[in-house]
Amino acid sequence: MTIASTTAPAVGPLDPDDGQRAYDLDRAHVFHSWSAQEKITPLVFAGGAGCEIWDFEGNYYLDFSSQLVNTNIGHQHPKVIAGIKAQADVLATVAPAHANLTRGEAASRILARAGQPFSKVFFTNGGADANENAIRMARLVTGRDKVLSMYRSYHGNTGAAVVATGDWRRVPNEYARGHVHFFGPFEYRTEFWSTSAAQESERALKHLERIIQSEGATSIAAILIETVPGTAGILIPPPGYLTGVRKLADDYGIVLIFDEVMAGFGRTGDWFAFQNDTVNPDGIVPDLITFAKGVNSGYVPAGGVIIPPWIADEFGERVFPGGLTYSGHPLAMGAIVATLDAMEEEGIVDNAARVGRDLLAPGLAALAAKHPMIGDVRGVGVFWALDLVSDPETREPVGPQVIAALKSELMKRGLLPFAADNRIHVVPPCIVTDEEVARALAIYDEAFTAVEA
Amino acid sequence: MTIASTTAPAVGPLDPDDGQRAYDLDRAHVFHSWSAQEKITPLVFAGGAGCEIWDFEGNYYLDFSSQLVNTNIGHQHPKVIAGIKAQADVLATVAPAHANLTRGEAASRILARAGQPFSKVFFTNGGADANENAIRMARLVTGRDKVLSMYRSYHGNTGAAVVATGDWRRVPNEYARGHVHFFGPFEYRTEFWSTSAAQESERALKHLERIIQSEGATSIAAILIETVPGTAGILIPPPGYLTGVRKLADDYGIVLIFDEVMAGFGRTGDWFAFQNDTVNPDGIVPDLITFAKGVNSGYVPAGGVIIPPWIADEFGERVFPGGLTYSGHPLAMGAIVATLDAMEEEGIVDNAARVGRDLLAPGLAALAAKHPMIGDVRGVGVFWALDLVSDPETREPVGPQVIAALKSELMKRGLLPFAADNRIHVVPPCIVTDEEVARALAIYDEAFTAVEA
Ligand SMILES: Cc1ncc(COP(=O)(O)O)c(C=O)c1O
Ligand SMILES: Cc1ncc(COP(=O)(O)O)c(C=O)c1O
Repeated sequence: MTIASTTAPAVGPLDPDDGQRAYDLDRAHVFHSWSAQEKITPLVFAGGAGCEIWDFEGNYYLDFSSQLVNTNIGHQHPKVIAGIKAQADVLATVAPAHANLTRGEAASRILARAGQPFSKVFFTNGGADANENAIRMARLVTGRDKVLSMYRSYHGNTGAAVVATGDWRRVPNEYARGHVHFFGPFEYRTEFWSTSAAQESERALKHLERIIQSEGATSIAAILIETVPGTAGILIPPPGYLTGVRKLADDYGIVLIFDEVMAGFGRTGDWFAFQNDTVNPDGIVPDLITFAKGVNSGYVPAGGVIIPPWIADEFGERVFPGGLTYSGHPLAMGAIVATLDAMEEEGIVDNAARVGRDLLAPGLAALAAKHPMIGDVRGVGVFWALDLVSDPETREPVGPQVIAALKSELMKRGLLPFAADNRIHVVPPCIVTDEEVARALAIYDEAFTAVEA
Repeated sequence: MTIASTTAPAVGPLDPDDGQRAYDLDRAHVFHSWSAQEKITPLVFAGGAGCEIWDFEGNYYLDFSSQLVNTNIGHQHPKVIAGIKAQADVLATVAPAHANLTRGEAASRILARAGQPFSKVFFTNGGADANENAIRMARLVTGRDKVLSMYRSYHGNTGAAVVATGDWRRVPNEYARGHVHFFGPFEYRTEFWSTSAAQESERALKHLERIIQSEGATSIAAILIETVPGTAGILIPPPGYLTGVRKLADDYGIVLIFDEVMAGFGRTGDWFAFQNDTVNPDGIVPDLITFAKGVNSGYVPAGGVIIPPWIADEFGERVFPGGLTYSGHPLAMGAIVATLDAMEEEGIVDNAARVGRDLLAPGLAALAAKHPMIGDVRGVGVFWALDLVSDPETREPVGPQVIAALKSELMKRGLLPFAADNRIHVVPPCIVTDEEVARALAIYDEAFTAVEA
């Protein structure tokens, strides 16, 4: 395997004045996502290559956040940059109604990776609108109304996607109807008083079936779940869970949607999380798959829905009432084609699997053995969470001060972390090298030691 | 003025086999917006430059659709393509939490054009999520629930945006609550039995006020309107209307949102439609502006909300509960900076104003005088509609067969049209030249003659 991305050229001389200007313009004129505008101090980045990102002062960081867990191929992969430029020279944009060669090439590559029985792709701009359109399809093909999703989930910020979301972001945004939430399996913090993975799986399925029955199965269009809930804590489903959900969906005539926006395209060490043996040992297949992020590492905004013939055919003679100006945007499609080809040529998905199995699994376990603050280690591939506790017995989550201190110790040592609630997510690009993992593990170790002191 | 875009290089030799492959892949694997999948026959395009677009057989078309009315700067403007490539070399993507110089530059350029009192920009991927987030802001700052919008409108395909939409696309998608619709002014097809523009304006305002009172003003967060309803028919508001809406919003404490996704960034011959004298002679200013399309001609997906201090400050200490992975995406921002600079340097917005005033207004009036099928001509800048009728007296709209025949006659003569319902929208890029307008007017004339025969 040759990982080309780390050979991307750095930009020219960095000028700290540009950094100041970037910061000042940001503070004056940019309104930020999910934030109280006066309470944030954005970092400023100047450039990136591979697993590194740097600021205008010349500080380099190992990017173990993959930004928002999207740069699966690393920063500035030369083949993807070249693919974007080549498409830019031909045709940057075209209306979705008109056929476009690059769009067809992108769709066929995505479908080749999704496997049977999928046959069509509906392209969107990102993850939220992918879920919106998958929900739309499920409602229209079933003639039913409700969407079931997990409390521990994030599905995007638009009307239906944000109400399908389970976490705090839903609460101020409940303007969509037809959404019901349930608890998924989470052995370390069980909602079901279970004492083993098998029991957690069984009880979570029982709970879901009781919700379906109580809501009325014939009112339920879709079960929408992240194959591996990501932002909610990288919750690998226990064996049997996805199989059981598939069976419930079949038994009750419900469309099963897997949101693979974060988990898809290499993150778990497989093209899709549902293809991963740890996640889905029985290899069940959803009815619809939503994606974004890793499909082109976010180099150009894109997302979409992967559709099997039985759902596509429902809209053969009947109008599908959804669409958007940039559906199948050529530049985004160029980035998809280049990304998927480079990931294949360079064995990048296999690298993620290998790194997870041989380096991160044992490395993070050793870290947890040494630092009692790490209450649980969960993950697969390059998709890991450290669940931090103030007391290993009660599993009481650490507070925001601990997370802030850890972030600062990690940054000081040259690692850009991903923090969520009481957790640090260890989510490097799929191209991460052994040396980078070793360096990162040493930094995490030192940072935990520093915060414990 | 120098219009550089028409000097963009064409791509190399066109291969009809590529066209066939593009078509076949599309039919096999691409799921299309707003369509019955088996009932469409997509055109295939290979490339474009300026106001032209061509297929793999070497057929060239004058693009008088601007695709989905988004390529305001024309196809493949060399400065925008160069801007995208330059940004691609530095940093294609970064998480929205991190400050980025290009994003700040884009925000400050947008704000310079929006004028007082606007101070911040929240970036999104397109128009739908721009409206979602503007609605979110309005609800949170007012603590109110309902959003009023027009029956004659399109606001996007996501949860709230599609239910704010008034046209048929809303009906199968009504899963959001808190939406109420009203009729806007439309003199040619009045809902208010009016007989003059002044009366239409006055009665439309009376109707809106009665809706506000009947819904309960204290339940209404926002009035969301397209400054010039676009897809619904390019409905230039009669004098006094926007002024009256502004007054109603003020009187009842309602946030006034102008959706400038289609009307903004040059389309009307001004940077924003609300700055246009014909549209808004009193120069009133909305509370929030949403944009997408023309801001970078859709070369990279982007949209956003333009925010004044009083609304931004509401989220100074309080979390704004909205966000998305690609908010302020660097590559999209690079395209915005290059687009807005090129539009300014090349006087492209002035060109749209001049073409509208000197060429399209008289040219389309002459066309209407000659062809009785053209019942009404409406527009400004490069934003015009021909409202087609089977009977000038009753104003009965022509049926789909007439529109299909017209489209085919126009295509045959080398013009790519924009059709909606019973209308042909005349919406070329803002860079359109006198020669191209003359050529297009002759083609429209011939096509009408052919269909009449
Ligand atoms: C699982 C999942 N679904 C959907 C989304 C929403 O994607 P976007 O931010 O592109 O709308 C995210 C984003 O983090 C996600 O993690
Ligand atoms: C006025 C208006 N608002 C919103 C939208 C939705 O924009 P997008 O398709 O980028 O979501 C459109 C698209 O045509 C529009 O014309």
